[in-house]
Amino acid sequence: MKKVLITTVPFGDKDKRSIEMLNAEGIEYLINPLNRKLTEAELAELVPDFDAIIAGTEVISDFVMSHANKLKLISRVGIGLDSVDLLAAKSRGIAVSFTPDAPAPAVSELTIGLMLALLRFTHLSNNHIQNGQWQRYFGRRLGELTIGIIGFGRIGKGVLKHLEGFSCKKILINDLIDKPNINSTLVIDWVEKEQIYREADIITLHLPLTKKTNNMINKKELLLMKPDAVIINTSRGGIINEDGLFEVLKDNHLSGAAIDVFKQEPYQGPLKKIERCLLTAHMGSMSIDCRSRMEIEATEEVVRFFKNKTLKGAVPDQEYAVQRDS
Amino acid sequence: MKKVLITTVPFGDKDKRSIEMLNAEGIEYLINPLNRKLTEAELAELVPDFDAIIAGTEVISDFVMSHANKLKLISRVGIGLDSVDLLAAKSRGIAVSFTPDAPAPAVSELTIGLMLALLRFTHLSNNHIQNGQWQRYFGRRLGELTIGIIGFGRIGKGVLKHLEGFSCKKILINDLIDKPNINSTLVIDWVEKEQIYREADIITLHLPLTKKTNNMINKKELLLMKPDAVIINTSRGGIINEDGLFEVLKDNHLSGAAIDVFKQEPYQGPLKKIERCLLTAHMGSMSIDCRSRMEIEATEEVVRFFKNKTLKGAVPDQEYAVQRDS
Repeated sequence: MKKVLITTVPFGDKDKRSIEMLNAEGIEYLINPLNRKLTEAELAELVPDFDAIIAGTEVISDFVMSHANKLKLISRVGIGLDSVDLLAAKSRGIAVSFTPDAPAPAVSELTIGLMLALLRFTHLSNNHIQNGQWQRYFGRRLGELTIGIIGFGRIGKGVLKHLEGFSCKKILINDLIDKPNINSTLVIDWVEKEQIYREADIITLHLPLTKKTNNMINKKELLLMKPDAVIINTSRGGIINEDGLFEVLKDNHLSGAAIDVFKQEPYQGPLKKIERCLLTAHMGSMSIDCRSRMEIEATEEVVRFFKNKTLKGAVPDQEYAVQRDS
Repeated sequence: MKKVLITTVPFGDKDKRSIEMLNAEGIEYLINPLNRKLTEAELAELVPDFDAIIAGTEVISDFVMSHANKLKLISRVGIGLDSVDLLAAKSRGIAVSFTPDAPAPAVSELTIGLMLALLRFTHLSNNHIQNGQWQRYFGRRLGELTIGIIGFGRIGKGVLKHLEGFSCKKILINDLIDKPNINSTLVIDWVEKEQIYREADIITLHLPLTKKTNNMINKKELLLMKPDAVIINTSRGGIINEDGLFEVLKDNHLSGAAIDVFKQEPYQGPLKKIERCLLTAHMGSMSIDCRSRMEIEATEEVVRFFKNKTLKGAVPDQEYAVQRDS
């Protein structure tokens, strides 16, 4: 009997179809008994007996794989591959698949919600009312601002689509790829990152974490930004250097920041001390519909794999190349 | 020298043009010395010496006007007229003007922000991280939901425009007027309020407070709503009965509520005890651009009035009729 370790949590919580699929296929499974993101050591200890992992964002390194003698498939629930050592997996003959489309709608909506929360200080006003204070914050509107989108993949495109209805003043986009044909009523400029840092009122990141994007935004880049700019990260922790962000916010630079992803999760760091830094618990993909789709797609990969069928979400060669080149 | 009492606060805080205009015209002014919404008694005590009021949402009753022997103009900063006894003003020969267009863009954007905050529990996640807890909330997306808009004036129309970019499943609209021609890519049904209560996943109110809308949504109406619906009020306190809302939320009905306006402001009531009730301090119109426009338009009315020019924002007859008929 094939055995699957499900490390991502929650799993099968709102939608039981993935669990039912595993049962129907006679696949044995264990859901992460610690009910939180596993450390490398914890995963290495858990993994020896399993043929596949339905994986979250925990580190799956060569060290972990060296403890996984039977492992033949890593099926990522989500899009990011920074946590998986793809080259080690390849050299050990372990296939890797992911669900790159499923999380995008949820992440792009959350991003707009965080923009509006920062612009209007809603979480601060709520906290103040809870404490008996009535403070009317002056905010700004998306309709009068320049929005910088760094990374124009599935999620960046979704963010642009949502912004259509707000008649923003201007959109600045940066991506490694050439400017595609964009069907939009908004004024869009395809620019260098530095121009976004200097000119945008809102900066939002929709990038993978790679050696090139790690610490891409540190104190120096943050200080290039307008004093009343806001920055939002719903992509991966590490792209904005957390210490740098803490320092500039402490010195009253930037109007606010919204951080959903952290270098180490659960997050326990000093950004908690900055009231205008809105912190959420890596919830980008956490809409019931997107999360269900991610779980089901990742589980279907496992079923296909065990039946020797072709994977639908096999990680493409270019992702291996990114890890090789960086 | 003409004298103006400015009751709304803050005033001239982010944009000095209104103050400069008054100075340039040689109009004497006093900004509300209590720096919060005045009670009827406080206003009655302050008002005797003034020729005009640049007014917020404080009650301007016949009692108040009876203390204002010199008063000839009430220039409302904003759209709502529930606070002004229009018939008393008319019988005393006091003109009333307002700025109905200026607040709409800020209110409609805040409304979308509150929708997304409720759907994704961002303020709760932030509070939990502050307290050392890491809880990933399952949310829902605008893209899969039915949105009910009650009141389809300037603000309701703005909300619909913003929702365009989210491809919502369906929009249900209720208004007293007949269904206008709406240019939208979304599926829109023009329905009775009861259908909105029963079918909408999100209900948002964009109505004036009148005798007809006062307590329009009480426990009975709230209990008609889906158990996981959310309700948002950025229009006027009193339209949702606060005690009724508190009771149903306490009994775990509704996924959340966002309340920006209260029967008595500053708000000190029991909704503070409900964590999933997001409370903001009447900040609907509080974007710098909209607030500036409101202040300037209301001040320009005062200048025009004192120069015997025609008012641009004179309250139309139908608003007097609403108060007469209700």
